[in-house]
Amino acid sequence: MIETDILIIGAGPTGLFAVFEAGLLQLKCHLIDALPQPGGQCTEIYPKKPIYDIPGFPEVLAGELVDNLMEQIKPFQPGFTLGERAETIEKMEDGSFVVTTNKGTRHHAPIVAIAGGLGSFEPRKPLLQNINDYEEKGIAYFIKDPEIYRDKKVVIAGGGDSALDWSIFLTDVASEVTLVHRRNEFRGALDSVEKLQQLKNQGKINLITPAEIVELQGRDLLEAVLIRKTTNGDDDIRLAVDYFIPLFGLSPKLGPIADWGLEIEKNAIKVDNTLDYQTNIPGIYAIGDVNTYPGKLKLILCGFHEATLMCQSAYQRIFPDKKYVMKYTTVGGVQGFDGSKKEAPKAVVKTID
Amino acid sequence: MIETDILIIGAGPTGLFAVFEAGLLQLKCHLIDALPQPGGQCTEIYPKKPIYDIPGFPEVLAGELVDNLMEQIKPFQPGFTLGERAETIEKMEDGSFVVTTNKGTRHHAPIVAIAGGLGSFEPRKPLLQNINDYEEKGIAYFIKDPEIYRDKKVVIAGGGDSALDWSIFLTDVASEVTLVHRRNEFRGALDSVEKLQQLKNQGKINLITPAEIVELQGRDLLEAVLIRKTTNGDDDIRLAVDYFIPLFGLSPKLGPIADWGLEIEKNAIKVDNTLDYQTNIPGIYAIGDVNTYPGKLKLILCGFHEATLMCQSAYQRIFPDKKYVMKYTTVGGVQGFDGSKKEAPKAVVKTID
Repeated sequence: MIETDILIIGAGPTGLFAVFEAGLLQLKCHLIDALPQPGGQCTEIYPKKPIYDIPGFPEVLAGELVDNLMEQIKPFQPGFTLGERAETIEKMEDGSFVVTTNKGTRHHAPIVAIAGGLGSFEPRKPLLQNINDYEEKGIAYFIKDPEIYRDKKVVIAGGGDSALDWSIFLTDVASEVTLVHRRNEFRGALDSVEKLQQLKNQGKINLITPAEIVELQGRDLLEAVLIRKTTNGDDDIRLAVDYFIPLFGLSPKLGPIADWGLEIEKNAIKVDNTLDYQTNIPGIYAIGDVNTYPGKLKLILCGFHEATLMCQSAYQRIFPDKKYVMKYTTVGGVQGFDGSKKEAPKAVVKTID
Repeated sequence: MIETDILIIGAGPTGLFAVFEAGLLQLKCHLIDALPQPGGQCTEIYPKKPIYDIPGFPEVLAGELVDNLMEQIKPFQPGFTLGERAETIEKMEDGSFVVTTNKGTRHHAPIVAIAGGLGSFEPRKPLLQNINDYEEKGIAYFIKDPEIYRDKKVVIAGGGDSALDWSIFLTDVASEVTLVHRRNEFRGALDSVEKLQQLKNQGKINLITPAEIVELQGRDLLEAVLIRKTTNGDDDIRLAVDYFIPLFGLSPKLGPIADWGLEIEKNAIKVDNTLDYQTNIPGIYAIGDVNTYPGKLKLILCGFHEATLMCQSAYQRIFPDKKYVMKYTTVGGVQGFDGSKKEAPKAVVKTID
């Protein structure tokens, strides 16, 4: 059982910044995210896209923003349960909560903060009969650790940025990379499309278009895929592979959280914006894009504010008898749980003679 | 008469960021600030202090944050009335407002957003009988344009960072710099104190301590000051000067805004945090440290959020019949009033052959 003060569901920018604000209050955080890495949409969907409305950044790439937030929260040593989806919640007798993921990992905390964005990103799966049987046995919808594919035969399907970027990346790792796409046209960053063309010309990648995977084969582990060209009557191509990675995009779903007894409106969790962004269940908060209230804007900067007020309220809930006096970081600095300390150089009082 | 869409009172970080959010909605802003430059406290009080709780910045100097915000809002060409204090407000028949400064500058706008921080920073003045007579005639409490002091004789009083920094700076500009302080000890950044010691040793600055200015002399313009050493019975020193700059710190005062008919609580303006941070007077909003509501935190990041929601509400007030659909900057980019345009590189659709 993982124990923490604030259990944050969703490791996007709002969830990450909550770690910082909690840390200033000496509260520890643990984050659960269905994606294999922190950052939410920013990392998974548009890491290379510039964002223009983060205050103080005339321009910042979504991926950079996440890197900065990870650096900012480092002193507070957050825990992470990644690649797992928060599935069930139980309320304990003492008012605390136990949250269990789809892989059975259990987390216990007095406070739960849902920072789930648009929901957990579920991969769009190809319609192949026995696909579920091969999951984690040769089929993956995300690439967690590219090293798994070292010197293996990999087939990727898809025609967008993810398919392009990972195909390009894996040519240096895998022994053989095949990219299958149902059209001849790819849609992605110009750089990536040009790089793919170059790799194809150099014979470093097999490109099969327009085509789709129509069958998966293998006794227990995946052993081969059948590829069908969609423009002619040619026989299907049987390709021996170790891994098949369909990258058909992600679709956000509120998911199991929708069944936790929270008040839901238009696929978002209703919160009390007059005070602390708490939901109808005391002790459970919802911050960032996942919540709704009158005048709500789904902006990252709003999530930062909501996370901050949430942490103050959480502190009061955990320590009802302590009076917390806010200290500015410009005055009090930042005391990390790792012993690190940041503060402004102190003024000196010195005689001049 | 200066005309604008949103008249922002206070050019600190919250007021500055409001310009950006208004700009995304194609609304123009004009800012009034009693200080001679934008940035509020961040620039005037602690430009070199690191702030640790701006989301996405593990550390940022207050002055850098302001520079970044100025860069971020540049496409939206805000107007500035600096070094003037918003004094009176009148409500016009059509519901719009006219705000007049202490120097008589008039501003007209349908929306007023007070982003006044802790209030306007009023200089602490030395208790000298005829000091008001010499204001703008040889006495200054702020340094707006250092070039005014080129080849002039300047006496500065004070023992903190401002007095140290400006004394050091002006040794390269003025023909003669004298620093008077009522103690022998100075309180400031180690660097500055050491630099002052060095300048004194080199004879580039006259240091008179412990001492104070006891009299101002001059027919119309300031011509000389009398300096009294406070530890002995020596005769007062008469020093011929062109300028006397007492830098005894600033003290924030809500000031004339307190008489605008706004609901005030604990020196802050009460706003409706359930929706849009509007005050009890429709069309006047209060954002950032100047406002109060249940759970209010005086943090810059909260001001950013409040500014953003305020702008949405202001838009609806100005255009009651238009339905605004928010577009993310990652998708819609930023269209400056100056014709500039920022956006993400578009995806291409390209055949690979």
